[in-house]
Amino acid sequence: MTTQPIELPGFIAASSLNLLRQRAPLVHCLTNEVVQAFTANTLLAIGAAPAMVVEPCEAAQFSAMADAVLINIGTLSQRRAEAMMAAIIGANQAGVPWVLDPVAVGALAYRTEFALSVLPLKPAAIRANASEILALAGEPSLGRGVDSSDDSLHALPAAGRLAREYGTLVAITGRVDFITDGDRIWSVDDGDPLMTRVTGTGCALSAVVAAFCALPGDRLQHVAAACRVMARAGRLTVPGVAGPGSFAVGFLDRLYAMDGGDLQ
Amino acid sequence: MTTQPIELPGFIAASSLNLLRQRAPLVHCLTNEVVQAFTANTLLAIGAAPAMVVEPCEAAQFSAMADAVLINIGTLSQRRAEAMMAAIIGANQAGVPWVLDPVAVGALAYRTEFALSVLPLKPAAIRANASEILALAGEPSLGRGVDSSDDSLHALPAAGRLAREYGTLVAITGRVDFITDGDRIWSVDDGDPLMTRVTGTGCALSAVVAAFCALPGDRLQHVAAACRVMARAGRLTVPGVAGPGSFAVGFLDRLYAMDGGDLQ
Amino acid sequence: MTTQPIELPGFIAASSLNLLRQRAPLVHCLTNEVVQAFTANTLLAIGAAPAMVVEPCEAAQFSAMADAVLINIGTLSQRRAEAMMAAIIGANQAGVPWVLDPVAVGALAYRTEFALSVLPLKPAAIRANASEILALAGEPSLGRGVDSSDDSLHALPAAGRLAREYGTLVAITGRVDFITDGDRIWSVDDGDPLMTRVTGTGCALSAVVAAFCALPGDRLQHVAAACRVMARAGRLTVPGVAGPGSFAVGFLDRLYAMDGGDLQ
Repeated sequence: MTTQPIELPGFIAASSLNLLRQRAPLVHCLTNEVVQAFTANTLLAIGAAPAMVVEPCEAAQFSAMADAVLINIGTLSQRRAEAMMAAIIGANQAGVPWVLDPVAVGALAYRTEFALSVLPLKPAAIRANASEILALAGEPSLGRGVDSSDDSLHALPAAGRLAREYGTLVAITGRVDFITDGDRIWSVDDGDPLMTRVTGTGCALSAVVAAFCALPGDRLQHVAAACRVMARAGRLTVPGVAGPGSFAVGFLDRLYAMDGGDLQ
Repeated sequence: MTTQPIELPGFIAASSLNLLRQRAPLVHCLTNEVVQAFTANTLLAIGAAPAMVVEPCEAAQFSAMADAVLINIGTLSQRRAEAMMAAIIGANQAGVPWVLDPVAVGALAYRTEFALSVLPLKPAAIRANASEILALAGEPSLGRGVDSSDDSLHALPAAGRLAREYGTLVAITGRVDFITDGDRIWSVDDGDPLMTRVTGTGCALSAVVAAFCALPGDRLQHVAAACRVMARAGRLTVPGVAGPGSFAVGFLDRLYAMDGGDLQ
Repeated sequence: MTTQPIELPGFIAASSLNLLRQRAPLVHCLTNEVVQAFTANTLLAIGAAPAMVVEPCEAAQFSAMADAVLINIGTLSQRRAEAMMAAIIGANQAGVPWVLDPVAVGALAYRTEFALSVLPLKPAAIRANASEILALAGEPSLGRGVDSSDDSLHALPAAGRLAREYGTLVAITGRVDFITDGDRIWSVDDGDPLMTRVTGTGCALSAVVAAFCALPGDRLQHVAAACRVMARAGRLTVPGVAGPGSFAVGFLDRLYAMDGGDLQ
């Protein structure tokens, strides 16, 4: 990549958020067992519509009716992998964008094989932490579980290569987020560490990225906007809360109430 | 139907709620993956007891021990369909009432076939939105995903036909709810649109309907009472909350604290 | 057992909690469908790290990488039973402790057979209510659903026998908790009945017990500390809340903020 990261301006994030609320995209979420309710509530709070359809034959049918599809492999099983593959093929045939969240890829063999097998099926975007991006790109990582021990910036070259090779967008999230198509790079420096004490904030972000991928216009800007909206909501929520329980509640309230002014 | 809808009086709802709390019925929930925790917490808050038992052989055994069974097809899979069928048969043999929530029926082929196959197995009640009722009755609908685009009143004739044909009760919920046995019709005009921004409020209502079906007495009144209690709890919760996160929390608190006076 | 129960001193609980936060053990949770998010959030709030990995081949690989494993049979299915067995074998080969939560054992045949089949595979600890302990020990119980109708003290002799026969620790929880290795007995008299109106508090306790089993030192003390920390957090949360919704939120906040002074 020849360009340097540029912090995403708030007015761009606000513009994407306005568009999302006008369109209210329907997101078909094939996600992990732990975070389904929080993911659905996050999409509803921000103004999108969630639906989880899991039987393979229905997943194929439904992905073609949805505005975007999320594939999150956090609790991948054989049966769910079949449903995901069916949904991806259905989405591709219908021209519906799909997003990959390769949870803990690299650390475990079965999901790593699955994630590598779907990479050539043209995800619209990949949302992952630095360890996962390095693993997807075939580079050494220190991943144990879902928390990333590599710095986002360190994984940025690997993200750029993935983006160019597969014609996709990559959002590396961490203390700072980077969003790239292999050429341009947006950065988002926002958020709060308390977000890591609530399960599913990263997974919910991937669902929101999928929702923003359904919008017309500059998809790289929209994906960066998704990261900015979620990170800003997190940072604005922290001052009013006593811990991770009230954070999760306040975060949904904040997403629901968020307007352009909050993003400046 | 020859009768007109009559708004359910608060004292009837209060009477059913009192009875529910005395009996604390055990509800066997075979429901979708997204809403299981919220459903369980709703039943606990209102004074019932939830249990989720999913292996087909256990589902059959447990449904006969429960006071009511909920069948919700939101994330229907082949394996879960087997468990549901086993639970329905076990419930019917033991004389335990079961309730159908036909999520997104009509929009997707596999679940539509399943829902139509269990209709003749004598559900005590069906709780659905207008689109789903129209689909169950074989009439055209506009359903995409789980939100209803048809008005409850428009689906009322179809609900009446379903109720008479299958000897069941039908609760159509939406901005206004109608509860009918094909002859009498109760209406409930309560609730708040914010409830649609929290995942699982409709699914939890179906579980509550199942709990109320376990009570002795006029089942149609009890089912209408379930709708009224939930809608009123929602409406009373809204003024104190900042968005859907705090709504979900306050709603459980309100259900827990609800008394007859709240329903007048 | 020749000894009498001794109330666990607060300073021991505080010492174990400090150690937990230094180590931040990674807990591989194979738990029921209903409580996964609350379990993960509880572990995160207290300072441990959760991960749910469910495909049998991955469950075996991951349990060997984790610091502790939780086996909770609340929504046992054939496929999940395979994953659990693989995880237990992987954990045992790697010397990783695993904890059994035998939800509703005794009441249902399939899970009872499974629970009895894993007992000889050397769980580090068993966390259950009195009904479940009696069922595991082959004694008559009154269990229906997940709530215990037997008193903890009544099940204490059975717990002692289980602990000695299988070389494990047993935590019976209820109004009063008892934690025994078949010789020593700690008691914890804390908590609040409102905890029973929130789904998953017992299941989350079992995950916390697993996290504390990963610590070096006196495991019986650590398991008793886990019970005390959770019960105390519950009791301290109650005064500030309006019902079970705000209790669940406040409980996570309280766990996150808990320090040694809260345990004295």
